[in-house]
Amino acid sequence: MTELERIRTQVVAPDAAFADAARRLLDGKTKPRGSLGRIEELAAWYAAVRRDPAPPLPAKAMGADHGVADEGVSAYPAEVTRQMMLNFADGGAAINVLARQAQARVVVVDMGTRPPAVDHPSILSRRIGDGTASFVRGPAMSRDQAMRAIAVGVEVASALADEGVTLLGIGEMGIGNSSAASAITASLLNVSPAEVVGRGTGVDDVGLVRKLEAVRRGLEVNRPDGGDALDVLAKVGGFEIAGLAGVVLGAAARRVAVVVDGFIAGAAALAAVRLCPAARGHLAAGHVSVEPGHPLVLRALDLRPLLALEMRLGEGTGAALALALVEAGVRVLGEMATFAGAGVTDAGR
Amino acid sequence: MTELERIRTQVVAPDAAFADAARRLLDGKTKPRGSLGRIEELAAWYAAVRRDPAPPLPAKAMGADHGVADEGVSAYPAEVTRQMMLNFADGGAAINVLARQAQARVVVVDMGTRPPAVDHPSILSRRIGDGTASFVRGPAMSRDQAMRAIAVGVEVASALADEGVTLLGIGEMGIGNSSAASAITASLLNVSPAEVVGRGTGVDDVGLVRKLEAVRRGLEVNRPDGGDALDVLAKVGGFEIAGLAGVVLGAAARRVAVVVDGFIAGAAALAAVRLCPAARGHLAAGHVSVEPGHPLVLRALDLRPLLALEMRLGEGTGAALALALVEAGVRVLGEMATFAGAGVTDAGR
Repeated sequence: MTELERIRTQVVAPDAAFADAARRLLDGKTKPRGSLGRIEELAAWYAAVRRDPAPPLPAKAMGADHGVADEGVSAYPAEVTRQMMLNFADGGAAINVLARQAQARVVVVDMGTRPPAVDHPSILSRRIGDGTASFVRGPAMSRDQAMRAIAVGVEVASALADEGVTLLGIGEMGIGNSSAASAITASLLNVSPAEVVGRGTGVDDVGLVRKLEAVRRGLEVNRPDGGDALDVLAKVGGFEIAGLAGVVLGAAARRVAVVVDGFIAGAAALAAVRLCPAARGHLAAGHVSVEPGHPLVLRALDLRPLLALEMRLGEGTGAALALALVEAGVRVLGEMATFAGAGVTDAGR
Repeated sequence: MTELERIRTQVVAPDAAFADAARRLLDGKTKPRGSLGRIEELAAWYAAVRRDPAPPLPAKAMGADHGVADEGVSAYPAEVTRQMMLNFADGGAAINVLARQAQARVVVVDMGTRPPAVDHPSILSRRIGDGTASFVRGPAMSRDQAMRAIAVGVEVASALADEGVTLLGIGEMGIGNSSAASAITASLLNVSPAEVVGRGTGVDDVGLVRKLEAVRRGLEVNRPDGGDALDVLAKVGGFEIAGLAGVVLGAAARRVAVVVDGFIAGAAALAAVRLCPAARGHLAAGHVSVEPGHPLVLRALDLRPLLALEMRLGEGTGAALALALVEAGVRVLGEMATFAGAGVTDAGR
């Protein structure tokens, strides 16, 4: 756990003094105090994360990570993960379209699909294995593999920070990974699988029962320790989920603000915050999906979603849409005229 | 009412067949059916408005209209309306910042502030008078003035459509105009003023009582006919609110999609839909503000807000943020790969 201990020492909670300074600047802008609501809160949050009361516009990237399917719990066969990775690399998936609009770069990391491994110049190959084992029959991966997956995420986030990225959206693609997220959430929050298992990207009624049963069995067979997030990630997680937890930690260590996507990315963020509570302040929730476990994850993280658009795709799509709201806050902070500067009467208190 | 009759004949409800065609296209994209939720609905709506199953990216403009204050009902003095118009023209207001991000143009129309009239090359002067009369003492304007204000809005929208604009956000600025919107809403929806009057941009408790009393007296003194939206606009409306109702009608006549901002723009849209029900289908609700009357207006229009960010500024700021969501839907429709094209296994039904 040396790597984890190292990153823990580097993560410092955002500094509220910079949020206060940003709020004072916002109060001088030509609008009634606080009238831009949560857009102003986002600006103050970003200022605190960056430790800069008037930060420049964020540089953005989306990390669409990737995992491996459990069987029989998804509407889609496992090979779709690999097919979709190539679609990401070619720019045709929903996340590519929405990232283009957000003017964010999509970074695709292969954390370990089933063979054959994808080979594409724009996909980072960081394979932890040839897919996780099915948690219905035993642990999804070893504790060492979970630690290595986290380390990959830390490395990816650090490299992006080195390149000047200051705002990161996290998402994932992995057929079957809403089952893993359900098991992680049930374990970390000590709730029953029935409270968190949903239809994912669209499983039917029979599939839903099968999925619930798989999650129940996974928890029974592996008995993950809900007080030890690394144990939970290893036993019922996925390479991409552990990787995203690492991205959160690596980003927080570098004061990079992170917009979390849906249920699966949320479960990864929850695991990261359990591993390192100081990471929490670097997070914003992009949206709330229709997955029943997602509101529980958000509540546990004390995060209010920015959007509620009934999405259930993943890939980081909800985070990508929310990047624009963070940017709006930062623009308001940086670009709006002040009462004094614009000669507008200030009736505010 | 010739002008109103003329525009009424030109407004045709959006064609659901194009929404269906767009949905079929969306179902072929590399994502589970419907998994982008309301983003897909927005794409289908825009396709129906434009009568094009795969419309090009929208050209956008924001109409930040403008009115005049009643007295003693706002946290800000009436001259702020004029000061803020100049701020809009100089690009320093919140709407300018958010419109820049949305890559939309801000169109500022002077519908008739208190003198002296603003004189700025980028403000369209379409003054109906030197400010409305206070509705506490009699009608805010004559029926003819209301009709002329609507005609201005129709003209502004038509000119933008001529220039190629296909997506319009509507907003307003006018100290005191949440009182007018409250009176309009109470009258059109036959609810009590207490249900719709809120703090606007930030009036205190004493001001709130005064505002409620002003709205009550305005309705008692003028007895607007809730079944005649033109009567309501004239007696308790404002030049900018009637103007925005005209923008809705003019946009609908040209198949321009309209994203409505907050409570005041919403009251204008409600009046427009009462004047011409076929205009309804051209509208989307950008957000829901903290004003208590706004949810009532949205319910009456059967519109679900896209954002809920606790904003209460107006100016079109909520609409500006939501333009990006409409654009996201249109991009998904136009830019995403299909299952067949990307070689991704389609398990959808």
